Amino acid sequence: MNKRIITLGEIMLRLSTPGHERFVNAQSYEVNYGGAEANVAVSLAYWGLSAAHVTSFPDHDIGKAAVNTLRFSGVDTSFIRYNEGRMGVYFVENGAMQRSSKIIYDRFDSAFAKVNVTDFDWEKIFEGADWFHWTGITPAVSQSAADLCKAAVQAASRLGVKISADINYRRNLWQYGKGPMDIMPELIKPSHLIIAGLTDFENCMGITETDYLQACEKAKTICPSLKYVSTTHRDSISTSENNLSGVLWNGESILESKSYEMTHIVDRIGGGDAYMAGLIYGLLNSDDQNALDFAVAASVLKHSIPGDANFVSVDEVNQLVEGKNVGKLLR
Amino acid sequence: MNKRIITLGEIMLRLSTPGHERFVNAQSYEVNYGGAEANVAVSLAYWGLSAAHVTSFPDHDIGKAAVNTLRFSGVDTSFIRYNEGRMGVYFVENGAMQRSSKIIYDRFDSAFAKVNVTDFDWEKIFEGADWFHWTGITPAVSQSAADLCKAAVQAASRLGVKISADINYRRNLWQYGKGPMDIMPELIKPSHLIIAGLTDFENCMGITETDYLQACEKAKTICPSLKYVSTTHRDSISTSENNLSGVLWNGESILESKSYEMTHIVDRIGGGDAYMAGLIYGLLNSDDQNALDFAVAASVLKHSIPGDANFVSVDEVNQLVEGKNVGKLLR
Amino acid sequence: MNKRIITLGEIMLRLSTPGHERFVNAQSYEVNYGGAEANVAVSLAYWGLSAAHVTSFPDHDIGKAAVNTLRFSGVDTSFIRYNEGRMGVYFVENGAMQRSSKIIYDRFDSAFAKVNVTDFDWEKIFEGADWFHWTGITPAVSQSAADLCKAAVQAASRLGVKISADINYRRNLWQYGKGPMDIMPELIKPSHLIIAGLTDFENCMGITETDYLQACEKAKTICPSLKYVSTTHRDSISTSENNLSGVLWNGESILESKSYEMTHIVDRIGGGDAYMAGLIYGLLNSDDQNALDFAVAASVLKHSIPGDANFVSVDEVNQLVEGKNVGKLLR
Amino acid sequence: MNKRIITLGEIMLRLSTPGHERFVNAQSYEVNYGGAEANVAVSLAYWGLSAAHVTSFPDHDIGKAAVNTLRFSGVDTSFIRYNEGRMGVYFVENGAMQRSSKIIYDRFDSAFAKVNVTDFDWEKIFEGADWFHWTGITPAVSQSAADLCKAAVQAASRLGVKISADINYRRNLWQYGKGPMDIMPELIKPSHLIIAGLTDFENCMGITETDYLQACEKAKTICPSLKYVSTTHRDSISTSENNLSGVLWNGESILESKSYEMTHIVDRIGGGDAYMAGLIYGLLNSDDQNALDFAVAASVLKHSIPGDANFVSVDEVNQLVEGKNVGKLLR
Amino acid sequence: MNKRIITLGEIMLRLSTPGHERFVNAQSYEVNYGGAEANVAVSLAYWGLSAAHVTSFPDHDIGKAAVNTLRFSGVDTSFIRYNEGRMGVYFVENGAMQRSSKIIYDRFDSAFAKVNVTDFDWEKIFEGADWFHWTGITPAVSQSAADLCKAAVQAASRLGVKISADINYRRNLWQYGKGPMDIMPELIKPSHLIIAGLTDFENCMGITETDYLQACEKAKTICPSLKYVSTTHRDSISTSENNLSGVLWNGESILESKSYEMTHIVDRIGGGDAYMAGLIYGLLNSDDQNALDFAVAASVLKHSIPGDANFVSVDEVNQLVEGKNVGKLLR
Amino acid sequence: MNKRIITLGEIMLRLSTPGHERFVNAQSYEVNYGGAEANVAVSLAYWGLSAAHVTSFPDHDIGKAAVNTLRFSGVDTSFIRYNEGRMGVYFVENGAMQRSSKIIYDRFDSAFAKVNVTDFDWEKIFEGADWFHWTGITPAVSQSAADLCKAAVQAASRLGVKISADINYRRNLWQYGKGPMDIMPELIKPSHLIIAGLTDFENCMGITETDYLQACEKAKTICPSLKYVSTTHRDSISTSENNLSGVLWNGESILESKSYEMTHIVDRIGGGDAYMAGLIYGLLNSDDQNALDFAVAASVLKHSIPGDANFVSVDEVNQLVEGKNVGKLLR
Ligand SMILES: [Ca+2]
Ligand SMILES: [Ca+2]
Ligand SMILES: [Ca+2]
Ligand SMILES: [Ca+2]
Ligand SMILES: [Ca+2]
Ligand SMILES: [Ca+2]
Ligand SMILES: [Ca+2]
Ligand SMILES: [Ca+2]
Ligand SMILES: [Ca+2]
Ligand SMILES: [Ca+2]
Ligand SMILES: [Ca+2]
Ligand SMILES: [Ca+2]
Ligand code: NI
Ligand code: NI
Ligand code: NI
Ligand code: NI
Ligand code: NI
Ligand code: NI
Ligand code: NI
Ligand code: NI
Ligand code: NI
Ligand code: NI
Ligand code: NI
Ligand code: NI
Ligand code: NI
Ligand code: NI
Ligand code: NI
Ligand code: NI
Ligand code: NI
Ligand code: NI
Repeated sequence: MNKRIITLGEIMLRLSTPGHERFVNAQSYEVNYGGAEANVAVSLAYWGLSAAHVTSFPDHDIGKAAVNTLRFSGVDTSFIRYNEGRMGVYFVENGAMQRSSKIIYDRFDSAFAKVNVTDFDWEKIFEGADWFHWTGITPAVSQSAADLCKAAVQAASRLGVKISADINYRRNLWQYGKGPMDIMPELIKPSHLIIAGLTDFENCMGITETDYLQACEKAKTICPSLKYVSTTHRDSISTSENNLSGVLWNGESILESKSYEMTHIVDRIGGGDAYMAGLIYGLLNSDDQNALDFAVAASVLKHSIPGDANFVSVDEVNQLVEGKNVGKLLR
Repeated sequence: MNKRIITLGEIMLRLSTPGHERFVNAQSYEVNYGGAEANVAVSLAYWGLSAAHVTSFPDHDIGKAAVNTLRFSGVDTSFIRYNEGRMGVYFVENGAMQRSSKIIYDRFDSAFAKVNVTDFDWEKIFEGADWFHWTGITPAVSQSAADLCKAAVQAASRLGVKISADINYRRNLWQYGKGPMDIMPELIKPSHLIIAGLTDFENCMGITETDYLQACEKAKTICPSLKYVSTTHRDSISTSENNLSGVLWNGESILESKSYEMTHIVDRIGGGDAYMAGLIYGLLNSDDQNALDFAVAASVLKHSIPGDANFVSVDEVNQLVEGKNVGKLLR
Repeated sequence: MNKRIITLGEIMLRLSTPGHERFVNAQSYEVNYGGAEANVAVSLAYWGLSAAHVTSFPDHDIGKAAVNTLRFSGVDTSFIRYNEGRMGVYFVENGAMQRSSKIIYDRFDSAFAKVNVTDFDWEKIFEGADWFHWTGITPAVSQSAADLCKAAVQAASRLGVKISADINYRRNLWQYGKGPMDIMPELIKPSHLIIAGLTDFENCMGITETDYLQACEKAKTICPSLKYVSTTHRDSISTSENNLSGVLWNGESILESKSYEMTHIVDRIGGGDAYMAGLIYGLLNSDDQNALDFAVAASVLKHSIPGDANFVSVDEVNQLVEGKNVGKLLR
Repeated sequence: MNKRIITLGEIMLRLSTPGHERFVNAQSYEVNYGGAEANVAVSLAYWGLSAAHVTSFPDHDIGKAAVNTLRFSGVDTSFIRYNEGRMGVYFVENGAMQRSSKIIYDRFDSAFAKVNVTDFDWEKIFEGADWFHWTGITPAVSQSAADLCKAAVQAASRLGVKISADINYRRNLWQYGKGPMDIMPELIKPSHLIIAGLTDFENCMGITETDYLQACEKAKTICPSLKYVSTTHRDSISTSENNLSGVLWNGESILESKSYEMTHIVDRIGGGDAYMAGLIYGLLNSDDQNALDFAVAASVLKHSIPGDANFVSVDEVNQLVEGKNVGKLLR
Repeated sequence: MNKRIITLGEIMLRLSTPGHERFVNAQSYEVNYGGAEANVAVSLAYWGLSAAHVTSFPDHDIGKAAVNTLRFSGVDTSFIRYNEGRMGVYFVENGAMQRSSKIIYDRFDSAFAKVNVTDFDWEKIFEGADWFHWTGITPAVSQSAADLCKAAVQAASRLGVKISADINYRRNLWQYGKGPMDIMPELIKPSHLIIAGLTDFENCMGITETDYLQACEKAKTICPSLKYVSTTHRDSISTSENNLSGVLWNGESILESKSYEMTHIVDRIGGGDAYMAGLIYGLLNSDDQNALDFAVAASVLKHSIPGDANFVSVDEVNQLVEGKNVGKLLR
Repeated sequence: MNKRIITLGEIMLRLSTPGHERFVNAQSYEVNYGGAEANVAVSLAYWGLSAAHVTSFPDHDIGKAAVNTLRFSGVDTSFIRYNEGRMGVYFVENGAMQRSSKIIYDRFDSAFAKVNVTDFDWEKIFEGADWFHWTGITPAVSQSAADLCKAAVQAASRLGVKISADINYRRNLWQYGKGPMDIMPELIKPSHLIIAGLTDFENCMGITETDYLQACEKAKTICPSLKYVSTTHRDSISTSENNLSGVLWNGESILESKSYEMTHIVDRIGGGDAYMAGLIYGLLNSDDQNALDFAVAASVLKHSIPGDANFVSVDEVNQLVEGKNVGKLLR
């Protein structure tokens, strides 16, 4: 398969306390590099697609380590640039039972926030591309990042590249003087697929419908090329046990997946990105119901893997969809 | 808040096998320092109270490491003394599923067992103090420890400091020629709050009532200043899964907490001490039902944290009481 | 107790990814040495029987480390020999939740596959022996291994040593030009006890009955000295949660054990071998129902212990059989 | 001994690669909290003095962990405040042989850089204080930090508290529009003791003498209360092997220490701060030559300890000064 | 710089005991992937050249992990193929002092030994290539590997790609019925640069001269296109301390490098490959003496880094050549 | 070779801080089990002799772990008994450079100190034995231990078993009311070989000669069967660097070994025991000078290995004696 995907967004250094240790007691941090959009690229590259991630880093060894880690996963890093600014960091504390997991973000003034819009030639980047994916985090980071995102969306739209957007409204970002309603509607407009819950619809598109089907139909009136809207549903019994399912509106109706009981969660970070990647993969390769089922199963498997990246194969996801080999010892 | 708490008791070096490794196979031990009473001081200090712990250690680097660790948690260590004797040690093997956790104690002849009663000036220690907490472990350790405990209880009583006692009968201690009925009744008498189950009542106070309410009322007849009696109830489905609740007799009736299902227990040691601390904190700050609810929630959260110490904030406990944020990823 | 058991079979270097890490991301492997038959010897030696394991290794430090590790567990290694060939290796990836655990075998051309049949004097090995245990893995490895197994079975039979066989059909082995039906029937014939499921019966004995009782009775017609047939039943809800029970045919009827819910599985590898060892121990020491109950409880406890070896005491197994102390903190 | 020392300065989260791993390959970081001035407070507290450190942190769990860590070492943290801003971070890569160790700083926009000058009541802080220590790092961080430092120096001078300053010129700081010559001369003026090399003298005081004795005498003409000037001399044969000595000008002549060969350096960070602390301790307790010898020996021992903090006792330093017990196994 | 290098050779899973642990006691192994030729590609890619490595792996997760690790370092893996066979493994025990380091090879029957010669289109592989590098290990592995190497050398020669060969005679290989004199002379003949010591010359080229200059001149008579011959000289004072230097014959005379004292060796494996890479880099970018100096300095730095790969920058190597920053703390 | 050695003495749990961490900061301890006499048995068993160690342990899982660890090394543990008392513990802090390593002993009231003398049938233990080894630590531990040692020495002497004694005077022991001169002379008297320095001679035998040759000759007048006296000489340049040599008096003259420079010491504990084992091995297998050379080389290699046990082969020791392979990478 030779589909090509371009993703755009910041990658941060993730520092996680080991085991179930609390921040206040941590004697070491485990190192990962992650970002919502790059996590999507990693999944798709791992599944055999051609995926390139666009971002910028500080020009030091830790920035380079992040690039190397993307390459490890098979992502094309040739469009990544270096500029002034620091490496964004987020600290993760793994909860357990009734104790929640926590994230401390330390991402302001990052190289990506100070990205040079002119460092990126979108005509070149989109050569041969089939799909462009971005999230609502990027325009929330800084004016430069919003400008870069806008240039990318416009180029993708102009060049006929399908666009997916994970709206992902983050209240703690948006600190540079603009709000989501100033920026997001224009960016979302040319989307082919969006991931959004009701809160995202309201904050980023001004859609106040409280019925999901109606909200999707309203979104369609705003985004003429919109074909799909999707979201996951998570019941959190505890940090260690969640139930997960997903829905997909395909312009006609709302399809539903089965719900999975996840009873020994290892790491839920990146679960939404695994879903996003699964949906893109599925829609490029299969019918709507299969795409949704693939996306949810991919996300479930992510919860069993330490780190942001979803190192599972297409076969493993498909077997979970079919209920095969669950809990077996594969020799 | 400026309440001041004094706790008294031995602190041991805790050596735990990593992960779910058995003693026979352990290649390393994880280091903690813990003791039932000091664990209470740590919780209270962590919650913003002024807490001082009274104990003695051997005068070597490991004794000092224990002092430093108490200071880390914000406990006032200025009344700690050094004397002859060894560092008490306990070895912990973490079970899993149907395999029980195990403790091997190695605590005889410790510095605390050989403590010099005259090293401690209780008038000075109780200056500005509101509460004194001790447990039935201390008088069980040695005649010196029992004498020290008695001196403390008498001074607290004389100086109008409220007293709590976790009766905590330990059959394997009491090896110095005295039994609990020789020592405990006099020590318990001036208590404001006691933690006791029916077995504790029988062994340490000679109360043979089998109805908990009646046992509490009987205790009141022995201890004229007694205001509260409490205990927890634990159903152990397996090492990894317990249900926990608590009851509080307040002189009128028995209040009950909700029961929590704990399905991925990380470390249950110190769970009772977290409950004790929660009860003291709650009774100093709130009404009886809230105090009980706070205590049980504090204890539940302790089960998610490696080590004896309950590094959770007042906010986290209150949110669990209110059922907020359970299983969420807090950003 | 002074029963003596001889086991025969290959021991491999087991390399496991730490925690729930995937192969593709592993930065280290944890080291164990295991083999289905040696795991049985380890359990029995740990329970106080005299157990000797017969195998061969490459003559280098890692082969010696495997011998030392057997000695650690109390197994008599005096019959082990060294010959040309490599150390068989298997790589283990621990799954979690819906993600299965995986094994990559790398065992061809091992020293054991190239074993010199004449290096072993079975008359001497069986001196004082009460029981001989082998599995269907050995004759599947190579012609030399099959020849060695045959020599052992014949000697045991001739010398009146009781024989148990865990038929354990492995499709991926049997690569040296023979199939199981060429080799296994003759080897199984003198057995006193066999572990077999319906698939094993079919592949290794040509028994096509689909009712387990009938299959056992059919096996009895083939193996005149057969007294017991047994198998476990495992329901895999997920990698982290299985239910386990066992059945034992004793020539008259099929006895059943209770079913255990295992909800926080640490390591299931070696669970079948723990069951096998439990059955041998039980049949040597108790009645049929107790033997079965002991075997299942031993296997359950194995699932809580990292590595192949089942480091649990007879007391611990018996207490689980009786439902005592489950989930308690043993001080 | 009851001398009281106040130190002022930023504390950062230190993240070090394990062993001799490079940044690009690091899978985890070891956690420490360090800062030039706080390292001095830690040494002095560890040696039995009363030491309080003044700084500010972000109001989150990692800021609190830094406070706890200071308390662990016995430092009084009661004057520490929380304000807006991030936690400064520095990443450390341990070199070996001819490969240099590297530090990546990520400290801009920290809570300390944004410190509220009015949060600190210096009259209260200096109650009972004998000595105040600051370094040239603080005024280089931000205007607020420089203002805070100036307020502290002026109060110390006014209240008769002796002042030491480690001039420590850092070219990469000083990014807020001021240069060292704008700020430092006034701050240095009331010093009792300064640590400075010739470069520091030139950059921060405009002293261009190239003879160290003459430079010291010139400094005295600028700083009327100056009694001591000191610096260390380090020969770096390789990252793993350095020679270290020190000199002390006491207003009359330049005293010299012996030179130590350090041939298996574990961690050199904090070595200068250990020297500083040793000098303060020595000048408060002994004569000039002894103070210098104590300072150098303290610094040498620091190079054998992982982390910034110099956990060595006064006895250990004195024994090294006397050449006792070097390389012995102390039982 | 846009030079393109092609390397060919097997990559093995390297399993190293942690710290200075012996094989017999190892509880875990650290994971790396290495091979003499791939190590060269990694260095060159890390230094900014375009480097592609040609090899084959078994088609399982560990084979893929090796590919990912090469990608991490920036090596082009698009010509790598999968075929039957196992993953070659080598076990490393780190010595110390007078105790030597040890390697146990377990590489027979690997996928690379069974490589399909027709899976590789050398015309395509060498498109745009400037240099081809191979070593004497490859033709020693198997007939297939020797055939593949021959096809590569012939294509490179035909297409005008410069060839370097690290002759690297390994007595323990060559087990498939051929000896080095059967295979190597023809392969070496078209070389531009060879790395060879006197033993290599004798075993692989039949050159028995004992004077290095004469041996080089003799080699030139056999290899008409030969421009350079080089080798390193290592004095092993102990496992922890070696002296290293190099010589380069450039057709006219023998150039010598300085000799470096390496007194805290972290990992010497890959030191020769770092030298090889340094020489290729130097000869492509500089004059002969500079190339030699660069190569030796690169090799020295490798000895400070855990694992086979030499993660040092061109700047770091050049600074060591110039004697700058040695033993400094770089901020 | 079939010589059989019996050793007697306490084995303790050794808990070591990881890397160069100090006690006060240790978050974990590495686990080993060691004792001066058992370390000798381990070396000899590892070198192919038949070695049995006699001791007693507490009857719990950690006592059993110590037994298992001895079995791992091939030592016969069939004479080990269990009795009341605790497990002796010693804590080890690894120094570096000028910082000394430290041991904190916590061994009083151990099971061995309370050993039942009647649990050991020395006639049976010495069946087939050629050599008995004890040290001055045992009679210093308790009256029971001294009695046991005396019973063993008397039986060995009576049964014609050669006796070696490492006198090893420890000032901190001898706390049960007897001094070395009360006990040691009688025990030492029947020795064949003793290890003693001048201090040991004085404290344990009352020999005050200050010339080593004269002291040996004096010892001979006291011990009629004495054939050998030996001691090592250690120059401690630093914790990381020592020089080591040995001398052996053989009744005629004093033989000297070469002196080894050990420049990257990993773990010196057990170095003396490795020497002792080397001497026994050498005297049983070779001439006097070779025995001494073997002993010193064995001890040198021990310094490169973590833990008390000297896991080196006879070949490795002999190669160091011959100066072969030092610092090589053995493939
Ligand atoms: Ca630390
Ligand atoms: Ca996400
Ligand atoms: Ca070990
Ligand atoms: Ca408790
Ligand atoms: Ca690595
Ligand atoms: Ca098995
Ligand atoms: Ca990782
Ligand atoms: Ca410093
Ligand atoms: Ca293990
Ligand atoms: Ca190499
Ligand atoms: Ca800890
Ligand atoms: Ca020793
Ligand atoms: Ni878990
Ligand atoms: Ni888990
Ligand atoms: Ni986990
Ligand atoms: Ni967990
Ligand atoms: Ni768990
Ligand atoms: Ni756990
Ligand atoms: Ni679980
Ligand atoms: Ni677990
Ligand atoms: Ni596990
Ligand atoms: Ni070291
Ligand atoms: Ni080091
Ligand atoms: Ni280090
Ligand atoms: Ni070193
Ligand atoms: Ni090192
Ligand atoms: Ni190393
Ligand atoms: Ni070292
Ligand atoms: Ni080392
Ligand atoms: Ni070490």
